[in-house]
Amino acid sequence: MQLTQLPDTAMRFEIIKKDRDARAGLLETDRGLIHTPAFMPVGTIGTVKSMSPEELKEIGAEIILSNTYHLYLRPGHEIISSLGGIHKFMNWDRPVLTDSGGFQVFSLSALRKIEEDGVHFKSHLDGSMHFLGPKEAMEIQSLLGSDIAMALDDCTPYPSTYEYAMNSLFRTIQWAEQCKAFQREGQALFGIVQGSLYEDLRRKSIEELTDIGFDGYAAGGLSVGEPKEDMHRMIYFTAPLLPADKPRYLMGIGELGDVLKAVEAGFDMFDCVMPTRNARNGTLFTSTGKISIKREEFKADKGPLDPDCECPACRNYSRGYLRHLFLSREILSMRLNTIHNLYFYLKFFRNMRESITEGKFMEFRHKWTGIF
Amino acid sequence: MQLTQLPDTAMRFEIIKKDRDARAGLLETDRGLIHTPAFMPVGTIGTVKSMSPEELKEIGAEIILSNTYHLYLRPGHEIISSLGGIHKFMNWDRPVLTDSGGFQVFSLSALRKIEEDGVHFKSHLDGSMHFLGPKEAMEIQSLLGSDIAMALDDCTPYPSTYEYAMNSLFRTIQWAEQCKAFQREGQALFGIVQGSLYEDLRRKSIEELTDIGFDGYAAGGLSVGEPKEDMHRMIYFTAPLLPADKPRYLMGIGELGDVLKAVEAGFDMFDCVMPTRNARNGTLFTSTGKISIKREEFKADKGPLDPDCECPACRNYSRGYLRHLFLSREILSMRLNTIHNLYFYLKFFRNMRESITEGKFMEFRHKWTGIF
Repeated sequence: MQLTQLPDTAMRFEIIKKDRDARAGLLETDRGLIHTPAFMPVGTIGTVKSMSPEELKEIGAEIILSNTYHLYLRPGHEIISSLGGIHKFMNWDRPVLTDSGGFQVFSLSALRKIEEDGVHFKSHLDGSMHFLGPKEAMEIQSLLGSDIAMALDDCTPYPSTYEYAMNSLFRTIQWAEQCKAFQREGQALFGIVQGSLYEDLRRKSIEELTDIGFDGYAAGGLSVGEPKEDMHRMIYFTAPLLPADKPRYLMGIGELGDVLKAVEAGFDMFDCVMPTRNARNGTLFTSTGKISIKREEFKADKGPLDPDCECPACRNYSRGYLRHLFLSREILSMRLNTIHNLYFYLKFFRNMRESITEGKFMEFRHKWTGIF
Repeated sequence: MQLTQLPDTAMRFEIIKKDRDARAGLLETDRGLIHTPAFMPVGTIGTVKSMSPEELKEIGAEIILSNTYHLYLRPGHEIISSLGGIHKFMNWDRPVLTDSGGFQVFSLSALRKIEEDGVHFKSHLDGSMHFLGPKEAMEIQSLLGSDIAMALDDCTPYPSTYEYAMNSLFRTIQWAEQCKAFQREGQALFGIVQGSLYEDLRRKSIEELTDIGFDGYAAGGLSVGEPKEDMHRMIYFTAPLLPADKPRYLMGIGELGDVLKAVEAGFDMFDCVMPTRNARNGTLFTSTGKISIKREEFKADKGPLDPDCECPACRNYSRGYLRHLFLSREILSMRLNTIHNLYFYLKFFRNMRESITEGKFMEFRHKWTGIF
């Protein structure tokens, strides 16, 4: 099997400006710049649902996330490799981050058995049995050819006893070490912090991971059912412990209220299916909050979805038309809603970054906290 | 209720070149030129499924068809009118032809009762009762603001006895006369020929319609279950009887083999859901025939869907990726497949027109007859 072509140099990260703990950074990769705080649209199985890569570029997406678990099962990493790697496969020449598959194995697959060297799991698609360990996770991501790979983690469920969380954490550390050994030149590798809601375990996790040394650090195991206050507590606790000179990625969290807190705490990267999934369900983000496009009052509404938005959906279509498309279950409804929500998110992140570079992050945070 | 703004002048039609009976024409409307033979993509309820209007323009669509029956039921013609008419509603500034609703009332609605002055029918959406007569059909199309309206017809089912077909035809003629009386300035109106498979009834139908006088003439009631030979016989029988100086529209027929015969017979306009519906089902048109994108052999196929095609799907994606998207039921699959099939159709029609202007239509016909 021939390896997918990758850039020779790893990525570079630089903090451009800090406003208290909030960071405006620049992540340089050979496939392009990523301005942080960055939002990564989710392209689960090699496509950001309903969007074309051209449209993603037009609205300013600089990096997308794709799912190792899904791509491994369908169409298979070897197929993608033989088709030239994930970028060529999906016609996206900007950076791609692939998760390790850990989270999906734990949340999606039926029947799983965790062992020292990996996880046996049953595909949610056809019930076939598979095995994913650190070696496999790295091999798959290497063949996919993503710019940033994630170390395989044992995603600790909520709630977990201290003992369970500790054992799960040790396994994650062990796997992280093995993943590091399999890291491929030209592909950045991020470690994932676990430890459930136990502060000393989170701290321990970070110490061990930084000892191993990664190109970036992610906080995992949050937004898995715990109370919001606990999630926020762990966000504020974790961020400052992570190395200051590396990108900090808060996995799977994308509610804008949570994002504001996490950026305040010092996180740099985010991914979430919320804007895309909500779009397909007719829930749209606007400068005055979320609205449902189904609302009867929009029936003959000539106005744009959000008068403050310059996205293609707001520029060219009325609320009345968008409501009609949604109620008629038309594909164009999912397209226009998705492009709007992603545009909203990416613009939100751009404006947030600008507020940091101008030393006005707290004003930005205050303005939006009442809305989301 | 304010009327939707329409151009002041009616459309103009000119035959540019004839090759035997095949015609290369130009239909001029205030919203743009339509080169004939023309294929009209179907935008059932105000959107050509999965496509944006920008994409339709990019691939060269000059006119689309939209369905009066569907738009009347959802969102309602008065809503569309209050949102500025069908063009503004769907952000499409090129010509739109609306059918009269007749065909859908007969094929889609449960329970219908045909009377002298129109049809009582039950909505296929919610079972509500409605009435559609010539006055209503014209009023709806007038509020939609289409460039070309169709007279309401009683679409004769197959098989029909001579007596049934004759009564149905007389009703169609009567309704056509009434529609003509309601024709609005600036909106072209086409009459629809019926008569089932009875040649004298088809002839009678044409005589009566031309006596009334329309801007164009359509052949309806074909491709409703009759044997192909009978359909072809009626195509060759009908076309030469239609006025030579007006556009001739063969309704709902779009299999390319049938199109070749109909163009040979002298038809100018076509609509069909085949390219769009087939696309969503994974059946794609190529220069060597139809293929199913599901085929196992495409799994790791790096090549484009059709090496002879310059559409965005063929330029940017592999067969392997298109297969993956289709099997994963991704929205982008329907988008790329649709854009490919419509591109194929529109290019086919452009090349067919060119063959007529160059006096080489029979070569063109011969080349494609073996393939479709």
